[in-house]
Amino acid sequence: MPQGKPVSVPDDGLTTRQRRNRPLLIVHTGPGKGKSTAAFGMALRAWNQGWPVAVFQFVKSAKWRIGEEKALRVLGESGEGGPVAWHKMGEGWSWLRRPGVEDDHAENAREGWAQIKRELAAESHRFYVLDEFTYPLKWGWLDLDDVIETLTGRPGDQHVVITGRDAPDRLVEAADLVTEMGKVKHPMDTGQKGQRGIEW
Amino acid sequence: MPQGKPVSVPDDGLTTRQRRNRPLLIVHTGPGKGKSTAAFGMALRAWNQGWPVAVFQFVKSAKWRIGEEKALRVLGESGEGGPVAWHKMGEGWSWLRRPGVEDDHAENAREGWAQIKRELAAESHRFYVLDEFTYPLKWGWLDLDDVIETLTGRPGDQHVVITGRDAPDRLVEAADLVTEMGKVKHPMDTGQKGQRGIEW
Repeated sequence: MPQGKPVSVPDDGLTTRQRRNRPLLIVHTGPGKGKSTAAFGMALRAWNQGWPVAVFQFVKSAKWRIGEEKALRVLGESGEGGPVAWHKMGEGWSWLRRPGVEDDHAENAREGWAQIKRELAAESHRFYVLDEFTYPLKWGWLDLDDVIETLTGRPGDQHVVITGRDAPDRLVEAADLVTEMGKVKHPMDTGQKGQRGIEW
Repeated sequence: MPQGKPVSVPDDGLTTRQRRNRPLLIVHTGPGKGKSTAAFGMALRAWNQGWPVAVFQFVKSAKWRIGEEKALRVLGESGEGGPVAWHKMGEGWSWLRRPGVEDDHAENAREGWAQIKRELAAESHRFYVLDEFTYPLKWGWLDLDDVIETLTGRPGDQHVVITGRDAPDRLVEAADLVTEMGKVKHPMDTGQKGQRGIEW
C-alpha cells in the first residue's frame, strides 16, 4: 500500500513521534476471508522487529491455522526475529493442565481472557493476535465492559489485533484501526469445499 | 473461520476431490488494509504444505514488505516447508542485470509479467503472490486480455493470489475467490502516520 498522509493533524498534545508509535487496537471483522490471515501476516512484521508475539486462538478445533502456527513457531525459534507464543483453546490452553475442562467452551474462553489480562498487565508481549475473539464476546461468555476497559487501558507499547465476524459496535468504537473483510466471491458458492494450502 | 458447507453442488463433471483441489485464482482488492497481508498469511499455509512459493512485488519501493520478506525467506531456508522465491520490481527484478531500466516502471512491470508467464508455463511454483499487481493493470502497462487468458489457462495446480486496489471487473469475473477489504477506521484519519511493526 502506498504511504499515506494524514488527513488532519490532531490537537492531542502528543508529538508526531509519540503519536506515530502509539500502540494500536486493531479489529479485522466482516463476512469475507482474510481476517485472521491478515492478522498473522501482520505478526510477520512484528516478528521481524524482534517483538515478542503472542497468539491466542479462540477456536474449537485444534487443527485450524496449522500452517500459520507452524510458520510462526519456526520463525520464533529461528533466532532471527522475536519469540512467538501460541496458545490454542481447541486443545486446552497450554498453561492449564486440568483435564475435563475441554468441553466447556464458555469456561475455556474465560480462562483464555484471564490469561490475556495477566499478560497485558505484565507487558509480556509487544504484539497480540486474539484470533476469533469476537465469538466469545458475541455469545456473552465474556464481559464486554471488562474487555473494552482492559484493552483501552493496557499499559506500555502493546499492539492487539482482534479477528472474527460481528465485532461488537463498542469494540469497533474503541479500536484504532478497523477493516471489514467483505465477501465478493467464494468457491464454496459454486460447490467447492476448502482445500489444503488455501484454507489451512 | 468455521468450515462452510457448499450452498449448491455444481454439475461440472468433476469429482468432489477434483473440484476441491482445483487451483484457485484469488483477488484481494478494496480500499482497506490487509490485502497483501492476507496474501502473505496464505503463503504461510502454502509453505507449510511444502509447496514452492513465489512472490512478485509490483511496488516501487524496495523497502515495502520487509517484515514479510524476511519471514518468508527464513521459512524458505528453514528446510521445514516449501522453498520461497521473492522478486521485487522496486530494486530491479532479480533475474535482470541491466542497469538503467529501474526508472521505467511500465517496462519493469512488463518484464515482471513476462517472467510470471514463463514460470506459470513451466509450473515452477505451486503458490504465487502477485503483490500490487492491479496497478500495472490499472495504468494500462499490461494487456488485460493477455493477463486474463494466461491466468485462466495456466496449467497444473498453481494457485495465484493478486492484490491491489481497483481490481478490473474482468479480473474479478475470472477469479474464483474475491475479497474486498473495506476501510472502517484508520489511524491516519486522525493524524497518525504509519509505524514500524504495523505498516512494515
